[in-house]
Amino acid sequence: MSLIVQKYGGSSLKTPNDIQRVANRILKKKNEGNDLIVTVSAMGDTTDDLLDLANQVADRPNPRDLDVLLSTGELVSCSLLAIALNNLGVDAVSLSGFQAGVMTDDTHGRARITNVVSDRIEKEISNGRVVVVAGFQGITENFDITTLGRQSSDITAVAMAASLGASFCEIYSDVDGIYTADPRLVTTAVKLDNIGYDEMLELASYGAKMAPRSIEMGMNHQVRIVVASTFNENKGTLITKESELGNNIGEIQNKVRGIASDTNVAKVSVLGLEPGFTTSAELFEKLAQADISVDVIVQNTGGAGKSDITFTVKRTDLYKSLDIVNQVKESIGAEKILSSSNVAKVTIVGAGMQDAPGYAAKMFRAISDQGINIETITTSEIRITCIIDESRLKDAVKALHSTFELEK
Amino acid sequence: MSLIVQKYGGSSLKTPNDIQRVANRILKKKNEGNDLIVTVSAMGDTTDDLLDLANQVADRPNPRDLDVLLSTGELVSCSLLAIALNNLGVDAVSLSGFQAGVMTDDTHGRARITNVVSDRIEKEISNGRVVVVAGFQGITENFDITTLGRQSSDITAVAMAASLGASFCEIYSDVDGIYTADPRLVTTAVKLDNIGYDEMLELASYGAKMAPRSIEMGMNHQVRIVVASTFNENKGTLITKESELGNNIGEIQNKVRGIASDTNVAKVSVLGLEPGFTTSAELFEKLAQADISVDVIVQNTGGAGKSDITFTVKRTDLYKSLDIVNQVKESIGAEKILSSSNVAKVTIVGAGMQDAPGYAAKMFRAISDQGINIETITTSEIRITCIIDESRLKDAVKALHSTFELEK
Repeated sequence: MSLIVQKYGGSSLKTPNDIQRVANRILKKKNEGNDLIVTVSAMGDTTDDLLDLANQVADRPNPRDLDVLLSTGELVSCSLLAIALNNLGVDAVSLSGFQAGVMTDDTHGRARITNVVSDRIEKEISNGRVVVVAGFQGITENFDITTLGRQSSDITAVAMAASLGASFCEIYSDVDGIYTADPRLVTTAVKLDNIGYDEMLELASYGAKMAPRSIEMGMNHQVRIVVASTFNENKGTLITKESELGNNIGEIQNKVRGIASDTNVAKVSVLGLEPGFTTSAELFEKLAQADISVDVIVQNTGGAGKSDITFTVKRTDLYKSLDIVNQVKESIGAEKILSSSNVAKVTIVGAGMQDAPGYAAKMFRAISDQGINIETITTSEIRITCIIDESRLKDAVKALHSTFELEK
Repeated sequence: MSLIVQKYGGSSLKTPNDIQRVANRILKKKNEGNDLIVTVSAMGDTTDDLLDLANQVADRPNPRDLDVLLSTGELVSCSLLAIALNNLGVDAVSLSGFQAGVMTDDTHGRARITNVVSDRIEKEISNGRVVVVAGFQGITENFDITTLGRQSSDITAVAMAASLGASFCEIYSDVDGIYTADPRLVTTAVKLDNIGYDEMLELASYGAKMAPRSIEMGMNHQVRIVVASTFNENKGTLITKESELGNNIGEIQNKVRGIASDTNVAKVSVLGLEPGFTTSAELFEKLAQADISVDVIVQNTGGAGKSDITFTVKRTDLYKSLDIVNQVKESIGAEKILSSSNVAKVTIVGAGMQDAPGYAAKMFRAISDQGINIETITTSEIRITCIIDESRLKDAVKALHSTFELEK
């Protein structure tokens, strides 16, 4: 008897029909002899609809009560799923974040889980019930409802799996696994059987779109995560620690696992900075205060001692970012500010790369052979990222996919 | 500084605009120096929409999880109202039934409030906050969500007022008070300034449509209830104990206060019952088991010792009732069963009637002067009810309104 945590995303729960399909999948898994905890997102676009309602009654909805409002989306889907399950003869019980013991801090809108008090869930499971938990939400120690941030039902699922020691945490959506590249860009992209947590963190920007926080939590608690589709029976992709994969680091040494790509990228360059200024601290503090997530950051110091900083943000944050850069322009002593929203990010990912030279050169050659200019480069232990012109993204991804022989 | 409980019904909360209107009314009342607890129903037809969803995933939605689903309607309206209030600069906090400490038994779908644990509300009030409470819902001692039955946000409001000793419990809807008769039937109907709990219980079948359970609770805890409109500033009707009214029982001795009328009535007659059978017990136990509310019951024993029983039910329950009567027909020894759904109920109400003779005769005369046949008569201490042909209801109500000089 294994305990399995499943999570169904909003795209799997758009209509009452979808909910019945999911209920039947759960029935099947239950009949195979498993104990089940099922976490759900809100149906379809419910969260956006609720946000829209809030914006119709207030210019700036206050975060505490906005969380109460947004939390209802998952209460609707989890109760409907429990109703559908009971109707199929499956003894099921729906629990809100509070009832499921999902304790969080009080950062409304993006609360962090501090603990899962699992007494209630354990009692229900020991009574043979399927437990359906509202994702995306929790409760503070003062009994205020919180939400964990957009697309955070994954986090609820992984937290449940970690807390209750589940054998697997299965993430179901309309994507059936993690691919070597975005299949919309590369028709020969191949689904991976498995991938390491670190690699998945880098690839999460496309495809299965798991919230990076949930992958981090999975990594920290060694939760085996399976990404699969609600709409077919295909085997998904297992995300686990590298050492557990048949292809451990030694064996995959010369292997890039996938190509990540992202077009929701805008680039800001701050040029001609005099040395000695506490520029980067001041600039990025201000951006953080404005709640802008900065992705890539590159700083270079040229011959004259002056340096340039380039960073990327989501496109929707570009104008807010430029406002802030202009505000601090003088105090950080910048000569010039450039920006562009016609850029894209392409990344090769592979845990084996850190121990083997030559990947960077091979990547740059593949891109420049296509006549594509590389504007910015940044690397981590397991990935190399280039910023290029958006219009050439597809060519770059295809060339890299072929160069690193990902189509097998 | 008075503590006032307000309740806004679904018709007052149909759109974001409506919510902003209600927020402005609350702001005004707050600025007059009052402490406020506001209870809300779900927006417009939300509860029906949620029920509809449940019926799309299950033939018979299981009551426990259906309650989780239905409770979300009031969470949406209470959080939106708190958001709108905060946007107006009013410090407000929305609370679910659970957070507001509304403890109930575990009869899902029509739970009874067992207690209000008001610590949280008292803390918020003492911090100067307006507390917005989701009506219609509570929580069991095992932390399962319950609902109190359709149109039961009134009950939440009265329970809050009783528990916290509020000066007034104000019930706002699209009706601005209690009238001497249904204004759709009698154009000269007059709004009452005040009315006793007992009288209101009898009149509650039309007009302001307060749930009888909430009036009973108000009576038991001496909560002064005001029924008024969200859409104008007219003075509403005060519901309180008879002795608190200027017109106490002595003074209103010769006074009928209002004419209640109801067309959602079907009549079943079971004729020719032999004496000695435990007929009524058996029959009405079966009806109760089938969850059918029986309203009027009349039994008469004729000359031959045989008796007839007539009872009324809601029209939607007629066929279910006839099924049951036919099932028990033999065991209760009935000769014949008659039924009709073309009947209506007309009632005169007044606490003074019990001590003064002649009201019944005057009522029957007024009706028969219109050439209307009275099919069934039943009385209580403070009312007399006649069942008549539905097509003559308006004539009967007009005649009674005039006979008892209710237009003043």
